[in-house]
Amino acid sequence: MSYRFTPIVSELPSSVPFVGPEAQERARGRAFRARLGANESVFGPSPHAVRAMQQEALQAWKYGDPENHDLKHALAEAHGVSPDSVLVGEGIDGLFGYTARLFVAPGMPVATSLGAYPTFNYQVATCGGRIVTVPYRDDHEDPDALLQLAREHKAVLIYLANPDNPMGSWWDAGTVQRMIDNVPDGTLLCLDEAYYEFAPSGTVPPIDTGDPRVLRFRTFSKAHGLAGCRLGYAIGEAQLIKSFDKLRNHFGVNRIAQAGGLAALADGEHLNAVIDKVARARSRIAEIAGDNGLSTLPSATNFVAIDCGRDGDYAGRVLAALVARDVFVRMPGVAPLNRCIRVSAGTDEDLEVFAAALPDALQAAS
Amino acid sequence: MSYRFTPIVSELPSSVPFVGPEAQERARGRAFRARLGANESVFGPSPHAVRAMQQEALQAWKYGDPENHDLKHALAEAHGVSPDSVLVGEGIDGLFGYTARLFVAPGMPVATSLGAYPTFNYQVATCGGRIVTVPYRDDHEDPDALLQLAREHKAVLIYLANPDNPMGSWWDAGTVQRMIDNVPDGTLLCLDEAYYEFAPSGTVPPIDTGDPRVLRFRTFSKAHGLAGCRLGYAIGEAQLIKSFDKLRNHFGVNRIAQAGGLAALADGEHLNAVIDKVARARSRIAEIAGDNGLSTLPSATNFVAIDCGRDGDYAGRVLAALVARDVFVRMPGVAPLNRCIRVSAGTDEDLEVFAAALPDALQAAS
Repeated sequence: MSYRFTPIVSELPSSVPFVGPEAQERARGRAFRARLGANESVFGPSPHAVRAMQQEALQAWKYGDPENHDLKHALAEAHGVSPDSVLVGEGIDGLFGYTARLFVAPGMPVATSLGAYPTFNYQVATCGGRIVTVPYRDDHEDPDALLQLAREHKAVLIYLANPDNPMGSWWDAGTVQRMIDNVPDGTLLCLDEAYYEFAPSGTVPPIDTGDPRVLRFRTFSKAHGLAGCRLGYAIGEAQLIKSFDKLRNHFGVNRIAQAGGLAALADGEHLNAVIDKVARARSRIAEIAGDNGLSTLPSATNFVAIDCGRDGDYAGRVLAALVARDVFVRMPGVAPLNRCIRVSAGTDEDLEVFAAALPDALQAAS
Repeated sequence: MSYRFTPIVSELPSSVPFVGPEAQERARGRAFRARLGANESVFGPSPHAVRAMQQEALQAWKYGDPENHDLKHALAEAHGVSPDSVLVGEGIDGLFGYTARLFVAPGMPVATSLGAYPTFNYQVATCGGRIVTVPYRDDHEDPDALLQLAREHKAVLIYLANPDNPMGSWWDAGTVQRMIDNVPDGTLLCLDEAYYEFAPSGTVPPIDTGDPRVLRFRTFSKAHGLAGCRLGYAIGEAQLIKSFDKLRNHFGVNRIAQAGGLAALADGEHLNAVIDKVARARSRIAEIAGDNGLSTLPSATNFVAIDCGRDGDYAGRVLAALVARDVFVRMPGVAPLNRCIRVSAGTDEDLEVFAAALPDALQAAS
């Protein structure tokens, strides 16, 4: 029997790009010694968050509150917005899925940068959307070109990450605000701020929940160290936020994650300590790269793109050689970004493993 | 600015039926004394699962394995099937969402019973599907009528819950197998077995992953007491299972949930103890109903439908009066099922609260 899939599904590729480090470990037959590929926070969540989750594990028999009330209100207070303007969901990836389903009918154009966050594109594709792209400019996403592209194609969504993944680059708040101000009518800017806590001050434009042209995405997966919890949120105009109720999985957020997120949000001290450790780790990564004759890109995130100085094939070989030496790293998918490998902020121990492996890896790749 | 939602989304209702007990508690200004409305397992998860989750909370900074490898393999072994035939996802609700997106193009008919699990319908509606229904027959879903309906409308999916929610009724394995054998070509039977652990032996037909006509849905939310973890799974033909990779949120399952599910699955002793406690609670609910001159429906689940003996308005008043007396219960949404209220298996203490409240609630409703 052949299955009667929808026309959209029939067109989707059957192979997907999602390979976790665990799959690589199983294939290699041994564990990584440094897990630096997924921009997770190796410094872990707040001890208060851990305790809150451990306590809540006893209550795991109860469904989580479908309104995410307590966390939503805490986030609203933290960001100085109304709770009606906050949507809590199953990580930014889950929220991208809902956003695509709200806006992307089959064939609808969606504007992004060539080489930008692939999971956004993946979610758009599952709705039959048509991705249109502009290249990065000097390793930055290009706001003006994105706006022009969106106007040209009458795109329903624009994606911009600030700071950016995979390059770590960023725009100042004024530039992003000018982009918001010029979003064409009928287009929504999906502003992915997953890494904003690591960025220098002056990177994040003020939140204006009266502005219907932008939806801002944040997460507990990065600075808060709760990637495994699947907890993200979006901030936007109340009418837009409410529209997600039409199709979101109302009981979809894990109860233990809700408790962890609430405690993490309250622990500013831990957050600041993580941000400091990440800044030190970025410097150390740059130092290690420099010791090997390589340069790094400035980063406003918890990872650093190391320019391997040649093409994507070469960087791919460097990456493979690092993986073979038990260092989990990843790299951008398209040229010219793929001359780089992407190394997440690690502990001192992690980065010593990396420092020890890199010279051999470079030699093996040459 | 008006948002450029998809045509499907523009047609969806803006109010949704998902009201959790926490929302009711906030509205009431006080907590429930007995939480018996959502068919959660008040007996809690296995202590081994709690410990595993508490331990894993320290690892919450890592994304969960997108392949759910360990849990998938453990489930495959437990059910005597190949791991390729097992899909782990964000609860059955999440898996219904993916199933709808795989199969339900706009306008496609989907067959279910009038009054059956509403979240399935909700997910179908978000894809623009057209729900067609047949009534329950003697408080059972009606396999023959569902098949006839599916043939008539060329339905792409049929929904059957065995045992059923909200009535607690069930069919023997032979009846369900005959239904599977007669699923029309081009139709997939979504067999929701969320409550199967509570059913008498002889309720569940053997799993045949060579059969492409049926996809079986199971969960850790009920007998395993992990509703808050959002962890469900589906078992079916490998080609069908693989198709979910086209659109599922690959990193969507919580890492702590993965650890909890694995430990819960290994603790058969706890599971059996829960099943025993649920059976005793069902008897006690029947006894309490009988003490108040009411009858109950036989149940193969962790809840009991109490027939309030009159119409839906009356049962609704009984329910409201119970809620006012701090007892969280729910009821079916359509006649004639809605002559009943639905009471989940509780602890002895929970059920004493219920027993004390019911006479007053009945009087208040009269």
